[in-house]
Amino acid sequence: MIQETLITTVNAQGVSHIAPMGVLIEADQYVILPYKPNLTLNNILETHSAVINYTDDVRVFAGTLTGRRDWPLLVAENVKGFYLANTLAHTELTLTHVQDDAVRPKLFCNAVHSVNHKPFQGFNRAQHAVLEAAILLSRSGNLQWKQITSELETLRRLLEKTAGDREREAWAWLMGSFEQVRLSRAG
Amino acid sequence: MIQETLITTVNAQGVSHIAPMGVLIEADQYVILPYKPNLTLNNILETHSAVINYTDDVRVFAGTLTGRRDWPLLVAENVKGFYLANTLAHTELTLTHVQDDAVRPKLFCNAVHSVNHKPFQGFNRAQHAVLEAAILLSRSGNLQWKQITSELETLRRLLEKTAGDREREAWAWLMGSFEQVRLSRAG
Repeated sequence: MIQETLITTVNAQGVSHIAPMGVLIEADQYVILPYKPNLTLNNILETHSAVINYTDDVRVFAGTLTGRRDWPLLVAENVKGFYLANTLAHTELTLTHVQDDAVRPKLFCNAVHSVNHKPFQGFNRAQHAVLEAAILLSRSGNLQWKQITSELETLRRLLEKTAGDREREAWAWLMGSFEQVRLSRAG
Repeated sequence: MIQETLITTVNAQGVSHIAPMGVLIEADQYVILPYKPNLTLNNILETHSAVINYTDDVRVFAGTLTGRRDWPLLVAENVKGFYLANTLAHTELTLTHVQDDAVRPKLFCNAVHSVNHKPFQGFNRAQHAVLEAAILLSRSGNLQWKQITSELETLRRLLEKTAGDREREAWAWLMGSFEQVRLSRAG
């Protein structure tokens, strides 16, 4: 089962980094699957630590993809690093072993500490529309513009029906980046 | 902001009912929006109580839509009723007033008790694929079969990439019901 999460890491000098990433969760084992080259990958190899943030604030997904990387962090308790201040829950991980790969290595991790900060508020279709639009943006280099606009149109309908302020703000950031994609192709 | 949740209610005799339902959440006010006729609506008008369950077990959404209504319940603490045993969180509500409507009345409620049982595990694209397929099933009477199959094909791709066992089981239940829809139209 693959969960879409935000991973916070630090390098050996303690500089933090936040990145959206899919994590394969099987019982107590967490497998992080970064595509090379990747700063999260480098940081985990340096510190053998990572934090998974389970947040429903989709602005952090959209923000980190569109150059907005300055989100409030708090110091992790049992590993070197930080967690997102507004996350619903987080899990602190230590690296156990690496299965290297030219494209997408697998980082096997164990949970050493988990905190349940705030309750899940139920499914929100707008949050998933933002998440799918973010994934679409990250893959837009491989897609026809016509396909992108068609998918965005479907997602926009979900957003308009069910969004709150955070979802609308995240959506606007993503649309700004899609507009840059459009202009770069027109030019 | 509209959250997709499961609402548990009881009638005056204490008989329980579980139903998927959109809830409008604005600050501390909860607005439940059932379409008439509706057993959840009747129960809330009888008991002035309801429980919102914030679960990530999409089998309960798919199950209640496909005749599988027997999910483990626990007794609510501050209102007449129950909550889902496997929910991540729940909120107990009392009805404050009703804005009646021939089609979709608004039930304004206040939260009297909330419990955060288990941590949110992050976004899972398969869970949303199941949720969207469930919504599609509930609206299938108004849709062309061609549109249904096209949307299911898109959702199936999300499911196959990211599902766990619960999501696959829920998907299979929904596909069984879509097959009945197909047969009823062919016949």
